[in-house]
Amino acid sequence: QSNVTIYGVVDAAMTRTTGGGYNQTAMDGRGILQGSRLGFRGTEDLGNGLKALFQLEQGLNVDTGTAPPGAPAGESWAFQRQAWVGLGGAWGTLGLGRQYAPGYATARFDILEGSGLYSARGWLTSVGGYTINPGSPARWSNSVRYMSPDLSGFSFEGIYSNYNNEDPARTRHPSGDDRWAMGFGYAKGPGEIGVVYHNVGVGAGVEDTREFFIGGSWDFGFLKAMATWQRKDAEVRSGDNRLWSVGVVVPVLTSSAFHLGYASLDVKGRDNDSNSLSTGFVHNLSKRTALYAILNRMHHDDLAPNLSGIEQPIQPGETASTWALGVRHKF
Amino acid sequence: QSNVTIYGVVDAAMTRTTGGGYNQTAMDGRGILQGSRLGFRGTEDLGNGLKALFQLEQGLNVDTGTAPPGAPAGESWAFQRQAWVGLGGAWGTLGLGRQYAPGYATARFDILEGSGLYSARGWLTSVGGYTINPGSPARWSNSVRYMSPDLSGFSFEGIYSNYNNEDPARTRHPSGDDRWAMGFGYAKGPGEIGVVYHNVGVGAGVEDTREFFIGGSWDFGFLKAMATWQRKDAEVRSGDNRLWSVGVVVPVLTSSAFHLGYASLDVKGRDNDSNSLSTGFVHNLSKRTALYAILNRMHHDDLAPNLSGIEQPIQPGETASTWALGVRHKF
Amino acid sequence: QSNVTIYGVVDAAMTRTTGGGYNQTAMDGRGILQGSRLGFRGTEDLGNGLKALFQLEQGLNVDTGTAPPGAPAGESWAFQRQAWVGLGGAWGTLGLGRQYAPGYATARFDILEGSGLYSARGWLTSVGGYTINPGSPARWSNSVRYMSPDLSGFSFEGIYSNYNNEDPARTRHPSGDDRWAMGFGYAKGPGEIGVVYHNVGVGAGVEDTREFFIGGSWDFGFLKAMATWQRKDAEVRSGDNRLWSVGVVVPVLTSSAFHLGYASLDVKGRDNDSNSLSTGFVHNLSKRTALYAILNRMHHDDLAPNLSGIEQPIQPGETASTWALGVRHKF
Repeated sequence: QSNVTIYGVVDAAMTRTTGGGYNQTAMDGRGILQGSRLGFRGTEDLGNGLKALFQLEQGLNVDTGTAPPGAPAGESWAFQRQAWVGLGGAWGTLGLGRQYAPGYATARFDILEGSGLYSARGWLTSVGGYTINPGSPARWSNSVRYMSPDLSGFSFEGIYSNYNNEDPARTRHPSGDDRWAMGFGYAKGPGEIGVVYHNVGVGAGVEDTREFFIGGSWDFGFLKAMATWQRKDAEVRSGDNRLWSVGVVVPVLTSSAFHLGYASLDVKGRDNDSNSLSTGFVHNLSKRTALYAILNRMHHDDLAPNLSGIEQPIQPGETASTWALGVRHKF
Repeated sequence: QSNVTIYGVVDAAMTRTTGGGYNQTAMDGRGILQGSRLGFRGTEDLGNGLKALFQLEQGLNVDTGTAPPGAPAGESWAFQRQAWVGLGGAWGTLGLGRQYAPGYATARFDILEGSGLYSARGWLTSVGGYTINPGSPARWSNSVRYMSPDLSGFSFEGIYSNYNNEDPARTRHPSGDDRWAMGFGYAKGPGEIGVVYHNVGVGAGVEDTREFFIGGSWDFGFLKAMATWQRKDAEVRSGDNRLWSVGVVVPVLTSSAFHLGYASLDVKGRDNDSNSLSTGFVHNLSKRTALYAILNRMHHDDLAPNLSGIEQPIQPGETASTWALGVRHKF
Repeated sequence: QSNVTIYGVVDAAMTRTTGGGYNQTAMDGRGILQGSRLGFRGTEDLGNGLKALFQLEQGLNVDTGTAPPGAPAGESWAFQRQAWVGLGGAWGTLGLGRQYAPGYATARFDILEGSGLYSARGWLTSVGGYTINPGSPARWSNSVRYMSPDLSGFSFEGIYSNYNNEDPARTRHPSGDDRWAMGFGYAKGPGEIGVVYHNVGVGAGVEDTREFFIGGSWDFGFLKAMATWQRKDAEVRSGDNRLWSVGVVVPVLTSSAFHLGYASLDVKGRDNDSNSLSTGFVHNLSKRTALYAILNRMHHDDLAPNLSGIEQPIQPGETASTWALGVRHKF
């Protein structure tokens, strides 16, 4: 018992989406402020500063009790978010399994903890096809990952994913689908910056997709400001795009914060840009429990990607607004 | 660790069904006396009498190690029985997620804890198509639920379920599928009564199905007697029916009880009635562990719904008898 | 909380397979040294030497976060490895549910804990179609199992599996698919022997398949030697075969061991034999955490069963070599 810590997040909200002559009320339990999950983790002290670590973390939908979608064909998730075992020491941590690529942690440069569906930037990382993304595209199976310790404010991480096991039959290894990535961070006083590079194999005979990210934040005390810029370059020009975002988080009294952010996605080779404006108020009832109200306004120029939240297609040129009123509890 | 309590039930039995020239021996691990499950729950004290609560509970089949059936198409269950987060206080409890409609707790007015397959009334609530049911039809996804505290013996609960997310693609919200329900209870001394109303949307352009239940019990000390009556009114008369049950539980020595009950389902507009007679003996080895022997006899006039337990179709007019010998352990 | 113990294994490795003009690097998180798993178990003291027990254990793939394959059609696993409840006392343990047949524990007479994919004998038990197997074929649903206590070195176990629920619709019981098995063991001083018999129903009108196993080990202190022999007799002669193995485990310093083993499968009625040679080094960082390096060399005469590890078909007459470098952590 003492070897395992159980932890998790349960986050559920009522949402309302309007736009394009469409309106819908729905519950969303995937975790708007923070992804709903149940996890098991542990550490064993091996002596000489060495330790063994593991983490098993399943996502879940509090609204329906279901597991996350997207399991490899014919399989089902046991631990969709993380599943890894590793060794750690003063030299850092080395893990094997399903782990985060560095692009996941870019959420710290976006408002609302980078909420994959409701922050200014979150949903547009998915619309733009980024693996530098605060969601599942940054969860890489079959990966070896190294994370450095904090080196006077500097940190580094690298990951290599041998993507073979996406094929449920574990038969022939599709060549050219390996991935690797690196991330650098520097935090000092009120400031922090992060740089990330992802190199994503997309199959034999096709050039790897390359993604680059730079983000930073500065905490003025009465206000924390943040900005990001990222680009994706694929073999075909229509896969290229640029995404930038700016945001502020303003503390209110001791336990609340007001969030405001804007993000813009510029797709190359087609007039198919999107932008997203989010504003939110998060009231912490404790360190573990928060109430939140978020309004996201999303506009797509030409194409009609799914809306945030309920993911109802809207027509090109339309604008959708989505409200979410919810509660997030960590345990 | 201290934030989470792990709990559960493992209930397995050998069963034997005869009837209509058919007989079969089988193991059943779904949980005959009490549904097999593994759960995680916790409470956080937020001060000022306010607390945060959550519960995640998965059903399971001890006989085969599988998860329950019935997940929405293309999805799999993480927590099929319950998944919710909420706030509580002296004013009651308010929850969001997959929760029980009031009709679930009507099991307290049936013998054998309302055993969904083997009590007199349990299986007939499913044959009659009730959501006022001691099983999955009373588990409502996407619901907001309020439960009052105990008010000098009175209690009240209400639930509204926005049924949108049954569509795995989370696309257009099927209109007219929302549900709501209310339940009232009063317990004083040896007596208890309960009244439940469910209003179940079945789709656009179709009238909601309405269900009503009243039940009561009286504990004479040497014997506890109970009775229920419920009705369902659907848009088409063939969906209308009435179900009543009576039962007694007789304590034997200090740790055992004999159960006897009868239930009858009267389907309107067709001569398709069913009745069920159950007798059982439950011997508690401790508060957590019990051995049980149950015999259920089920008769269907015209149609041939599945049998209890192994669910083998019998022919119209036939009678099936099912024995179960099992063990139920709570942890 | 005190009623439940959480435990598990996370085991992940990098593997490399060459043979037949084929080579592949892959991660394997199924658990090469020991199957990856998360489990919940508990015991309740009922007084008078009687106790209640339960165990729920799910397999998992650390490499991808997925659950094990092989769930009955239309169902998904909750606890693929074990799911049972029972009673125990001085007289032994009686369990109901999904449990191990005696053939599972034959792994103790093979090197590398009987590693289902990489030991000398492990993979050949699957190639030969044995349920006397250190893997899933020895996990029997719907079973009643008795295990004796240790009787001055002797032990006995028996299991009967009513295989009815393999049919997801739980409809008509396929006749002739029941299974039963017995196992005997004797351990004294440095020596241990085991004898196992499995009788596996394969359907109506077909003769049951019979499997027999005998194995033994002797610990010389500087070296532990082990040997096994098993046979399978099916209705058709092409299903008959014989499998034998020998192995040694040599302790190195205080915390490591060198493993070497050979196994050979002789298929009757066809020239389709296989042999397997394994060598491994296991270095224990603690009682719970080990690093391992294993090399398995497998040869198939005529047919081309899948390779160990990555399970890539090779051509008849070819030889495949598979390396695995991994870490196994128990919690």
